[in-house]
Amino acid sequence: MLRSIVLSNPKKRNALSLAMLKSLQKDILHEAESQDLKVIVISAEGPVFSSGHDLKELTDEQGPDYHAEVFRTCSEVMMMIQNHPVPVIAMVNGLATAAGCQLVASCDIAVASDKSSFATPGVNIGLFCSTPGVALGRAVPRKVALEMLFTGEAMSAQEALLHGLLSRVVPEERLEEETMRIARKVASLSRPVVSLGKAAFYRQLAQDLRTAYHLASQTMVDNLGLPDGQEGIKAFLQKRKPVWSH
Amino acid sequence: MLRSIVLSNPKKRNALSLAMLKSLQKDILHEAESQDLKVIVISAEGPVFSSGHDLKELTDEQGPDYHAEVFRTCSEVMMMIQNHPVPVIAMVNGLATAAGCQLVASCDIAVASDKSSFATPGVNIGLFCSTPGVALGRAVPRKVALEMLFTGEAMSAQEALLHGLLSRVVPEERLEEETMRIARKVASLSRPVVSLGKAAFYRQLAQDLRTAYHLASQTMVDNLGLPDGQEGIKAFLQKRKPVWSH
Amino acid sequence: MLRSIVLSNPKKRNALSLAMLKSLQKDILHEAESQDLKVIVISAEGPVFSSGHDLKELTDEQGPDYHAEVFRTCSEVMMMIQNHPVPVIAMVNGLATAAGCQLVASCDIAVASDKSSFATPGVNIGLFCSTPGVALGRAVPRKVALEMLFTGEAMSAQEALLHGLLSRVVPEERLEEETMRIARKVASLSRPVVSLGKAAFYRQLAQDLRTAYHLASQTMVDNLGLPDGQEGIKAFLQKRKPVWSH
Repeated sequence: MLRSIVLSNPKKRNALSLAMLKSLQKDILHEAESQDLKVIVISAEGPVFSSGHDLKELTDEQGPDYHAEVFRTCSEVMMMIQNHPVPVIAMVNGLATAAGCQLVASCDIAVASDKSSFATPGVNIGLFCSTPGVALGRAVPRKVALEMLFTGEAMSAQEALLHGLLSRVVPEERLEEETMRIARKVASLSRPVVSLGKAAFYRQLAQDLRTAYHLASQTMVDNLGLPDGQEGIKAFLQKRKPVWSH
Repeated sequence: MLRSIVLSNPKKRNALSLAMLKSLQKDILHEAESQDLKVIVISAEGPVFSSGHDLKELTDEQGPDYHAEVFRTCSEVMMMIQNHPVPVIAMVNGLATAAGCQLVASCDIAVASDKSSFATPGVNIGLFCSTPGVALGRAVPRKVALEMLFTGEAMSAQEALLHGLLSRVVPEERLEEETMRIARKVASLSRPVVSLGKAAFYRQLAQDLRTAYHLASQTMVDNLGLPDGQEGIKAFLQKRKPVWSH
Repeated sequence: MLRSIVLSNPKKRNALSLAMLKSLQKDILHEAESQDLKVIVISAEGPVFSSGHDLKELTDEQGPDYHAEVFRTCSEVMMMIQNHPVPVIAMVNGLATAAGCQLVASCDIAVASDKSSFATPGVNIGLFCSTPGVALGRAVPRKVALEMLFTGEAMSAQEALLHGLLSRVVPEERLEEETMRIARKVASLSRPVVSLGKAAFYRQLAQDLRTAYHLASQTMVDNLGLPDGQEGIKAFLQKRKPVWSH
């Protein structure tokens, strides 16, 4: 099963208000442990994928405690994507800025139309995109991230692809088709296998090489111990399609 | 205010002798805490941006203590760029080799003319570019860095852009214009905001994701507590230009 | 001296069976400490560079202890390449999948023909490429790695070059010539200098910036203390070719 989450407040440029973040959090967590769920696709209505935080929530009238809650919730949403048992795909058709750009950078896979663009323009309004920089700095080379953060200038979809922020760029009319093709591919796989692999990938990435190989080798052995691990190999050796247990 | 630092010993290919490194250190540190300083641009006279260390200082006549001082000073200059409160931009028009290439890799932003090239050719003279490799290995993918380090062959500006060593490549006649456009843009921003963001970016990059988000979220809250943080958001909501406190 | 290691079981698509891995391990370790050895080139017979593990060794008939030995041996081979005193070059002409792709990603330099392609298709048979992901995730941006791991789709040589998995891509008819040109270049260098530099590069890459510069600065001083370090600099200042001690 594929879950589609749509940012649907185009009048407000899909701003990630605290309410929107909490709704996103709920949607992402919804039945996360259900073995039927195979992949999540996050897309948006309108010409702006997301413009980032709602600035009305960041004035000094709300005060630092409220601000802290906004950024804590936002960070939790971003980490939740990485910690989620199934792959999360961003489908982007338009402008993604600040925390909107962070959301794209935080997904496991990101497909965008060629008219999309990406920016972290916080410096223009006196609010450096420090939290977006966490996701951006882990997705692209640091000089690329720093130029975006220091100048606030937008990067085209092609440049974003070149530098690793996107997985795939297609013409607008093929965006849904290509995203769904990848999503259906992921949905056709064994969920326990994909979940095990996704968790191990992010964990080992932060480790030194020897520790990483120790973890990943154990993951391979565990994977072979899963019913779907053995079914997949048997099916391959018998030249037939595997039948996953779920 | 924009500070321009020019490597101006073209006859010696702008070699980073100990004297040159100390002069560079002094120039970079000069009034670093002045709130008027907004951005630093490092450029060079002549067809070679910098050829790296002065090899006459690395013979066995000087001995290991002198050598150690040279590399310690050089490393301090490179780290000082990263730790500096304002963005440092390299403007490169020509060849940058060894510690010269390290200097480019160490700047926050690097703009180069399309005739520029980059190399770490130390292996050719029996001195592996280990210190340049620190900066290079953090700017480009490791296989790109290793090929440069093991073969000593030069990389074109276009390849350097592709792999993240440069932020922007332009024809020679547009180099100054484009660099100054970016520098003026940075100089138009709030210095306290940019300083806070730069420091947080480099710090979080070395941390695990949860720690990084914790730091960056606190940075966002602190940023909103700055006078320029609130001024920027108010100006945006009131649809006017912000007036920074400095 | 250049050592050539050829995967030569094309009928089995050069599968990395436990026997093949042990043979590879032996070949890589063979006279590793000999000062005559300067560079290793790993290539393969037939249209498939390597298809990865031998799936017949991963059925539940062998059991978890045997599986663990396979992955431990494979991880040791990959780490051995990085820890080897001389540069290891992959010369790829065809398809490299799963642990075959991991082998390419683990080499210091990788040259491929333009008809080559790279994939981590384990998910298709219920075995996520977690150990290949260790090498892949350190060679390319994480979104690139994740798309390969989650979809199992192949990446072209040009894309692999773009994203840092390869050092160089050439037409098939020039593959050997270009690889040998690079290998001969490496073989013409001072082995103690290259070994010192290679070890320091990988070690510092995992360290924080200050620790990395401390290590690399000491490496530079040690390098200058080597006979070849001083010979190289003298030769350069005297405008003659260096004569290495080995």
